[in-house]
Amino acid sequence: MKSLIQDLNKKIAILGGGQLGWMMILEGRKYPFTFYVMDEPDAPACRIADKCFRPEDYKEMIEKADVVTFEFEHVKDEALNYAEEQGKLYPDINAVELKRERWKEKTYYKDHSLPTPRFYVAEDGEEALKILKEEFNNIGVLKQSKGGYDGKGQYFIRGDVDKYLFIKDMKCKFVVEEFVNYDYEASIIAMRDKNGNFKAYPPTFNYNEKGILIYNYGPLNDIRFEEIARRLAEYLGYVGTMGIEFFVRNGEILINEFAPRVHNTGHYTLDSAFISQFEQHLRAIGGMELGDTRLLSYGGMVNILGTDKVPPEVSKFGKVYWYGKSEVKKRRKMGHINVVGEDLEDVKQKIDNIISLIYPEGFDL
Amino acid sequence: MKSLIQDLNKKIAILGGGQLGWMMILEGRKYPFTFYVMDEPDAPACRIADKCFRPEDYKEMIEKADVVTFEFEHVKDEALNYAEEQGKLYPDINAVELKRERWKEKTYYKDHSLPTPRFYVAEDGEEALKILKEEFNNIGVLKQSKGGYDGKGQYFIRGDVDKYLFIKDMKCKFVVEEFVNYDYEASIIAMRDKNGNFKAYPPTFNYNEKGILIYNYGPLNDIRFEEIARRLAEYLGYVGTMGIEFFVRNGEILINEFAPRVHNTGHYTLDSAFISQFEQHLRAIGGMELGDTRLLSYGGMVNILGTDKVPPEVSKFGKVYWYGKSEVKKRRKMGHINVVGEDLEDVKQKIDNIISLIYPEGFDL
Repeated sequence: MKSLIQDLNKKIAILGGGQLGWMMILEGRKYPFTFYVMDEPDAPACRIADKCFRPEDYKEMIEKADVVTFEFEHVKDEALNYAEEQGKLYPDINAVELKRERWKEKTYYKDHSLPTPRFYVAEDGEEALKILKEEFNNIGVLKQSKGGYDGKGQYFIRGDVDKYLFIKDMKCKFVVEEFVNYDYEASIIAMRDKNGNFKAYPPTFNYNEKGILIYNYGPLNDIRFEEIARRLAEYLGYVGTMGIEFFVRNGEILINEFAPRVHNTGHYTLDSAFISQFEQHLRAIGGMELGDTRLLSYGGMVNILGTDKVPPEVSKFGKVYWYGKSEVKKRRKMGHINVVGEDLEDVKQKIDNIISLIYPEGFDL
Repeated sequence: MKSLIQDLNKKIAILGGGQLGWMMILEGRKYPFTFYVMDEPDAPACRIADKCFRPEDYKEMIEKADVVTFEFEHVKDEALNYAEEQGKLYPDINAVELKRERWKEKTYYKDHSLPTPRFYVAEDGEEALKILKEEFNNIGVLKQSKGGYDGKGQYFIRGDVDKYLFIKDMKCKFVVEEFVNYDYEASIIAMRDKNGNFKAYPPTFNYNEKGILIYNYGPLNDIRFEEIARRLAEYLGYVGTMGIEFFVRNGEILINEFAPRVHNTGHYTLDSAFISQFEQHLRAIGGMELGDTRLLSYGGMVNILGTDKVPPEVSKFGKVYWYGKSEVKKRRKMGHINVVGEDLEDVKQKIDNIISLIYPEGFDL
């Protein structure tokens, strides 16, 4: 007889040992999986892995593993490529490739008629400033094509182009994008398994500041987000969990970017759903059926950024996930707090209470 | 400023490394706790502890720990006593003491007017059989006072006293109890913190066979269970999570027994509640506020007993918790499957589906 227990007796290697890998292991421990992590030994996921491999030992880890995944797409390229060559990488390199350069991701949306803000690709800084002037009247966003995430390498220019003349000398590729004066930001967490089955959680409302997520909550009831996620997942032949971030402007929804991995705006599924985004990812790449994505409760999340001063009162309102990072740094995601509630208003109130407790003097980002 | 993160930077030692300790650690990993476990290295909780101590090293572990708890009350007595002497044991030795001998537990209920089946204490087997005849007309239950759990050391006698004459020569104490022809079994999971705050989850319907829980589901809406739990917890000055099992007969509720620890009938709280029984236990003994005990969903649980043949289809209906025990044995709890549902009927249907898949030929107990 086929048994799930023997089926799942698999070695899953995770490239990157941050909080996303840490939660993947926390959620996967209930199954017979063995977890390898590639990172330094004090990384959150390394501390709870069955075995931690240093980045230079990536080949050994990948050869020993049955399945390789990643918790961060900007991890050591050689390791991602090697796992792909070995036929073990989920999601596969196509999804990673789009994230290696912004122009590829944006162009992919355009080529597949997926809605995204208007943009142009510039070969260097000089061309970027020229496009900004000619196409956008000096109001827009210049994004370095390579190496930008968490708001890095992005310049929001609102007519004050004089301050940004240094960009003229930059020899890298840029994406020049319209400035979207959005009503709100949103995201969806979706997943697809090896047989092509697709599921998604309800979308959420997100609040970012300086390129970093502060809090999110949901559900947001609008089926269009799921339709876009389904199309993207199918075009990519995607396997695993993904997150897609959107701008919503006058009822129009536009993809800001997607992440080929579990996502910060899906942490609320640890508590508001029966099966979390982390478990769904493991189910997809490990060869199980995807679980139900209906929410059991209204829910949300607040990030703990750049501090370990968390007043004990927060546990009245929510559940703390503390990643155990070795050092507190400005803007660093140290942990998060999940909340559930009777309705959106209740969730939002709890989030506000938690924010007042953790950031009594505002965010220091 | 007082910070939860520094507050919870505590070493929690767990006596016993079975699945209850394993789930305590899984649920506690999100906090800054460090976990020690006393058991053999291949025990489920030892495999994921920060440090595993062999039973003979209990003193070292207890001295290094800030707080000591147990996942099983019939664990090494010297360790429980030593932790109590050091003032580190939660719940304390009073609760354990009642479980060391059944007559003490039963007498405690009687002395505190807590409802329990009618019983007498016998000094040996001869007296037990005499009481059975005189008080119960040879229909009743004889329970060895010491060392009995999971249905061990219990004799259900229904007039066929001839088969049990060997008891006459047994020199141990017995509890002689009326046979309760119950309508159903139920239980409640309750908890109390160091400041005397008390909470309880809604009760559940339980199904046991041969002294082992097969499945349970809830909620069962009846406030009387909580009132009894509150009284017991307050009488004992209890700190931590407890489980109380009941018989329900013609609307009357009777305590069968209590467990001074997290309990098999509370596993459903991992998925049906925001804060699980395991996290509540850690909150109580670790000095946090207790969390909400309202259910987010109808839910239940099926035990995986004595087999590792788990058809993959079960993951359509529920979430598998596989304890990773080194060997399959008859009657051994190898794992369990949690389900959630729209209503009790939906939960019960999923439980039935899972039972048909795991036990196609019935239970082998």
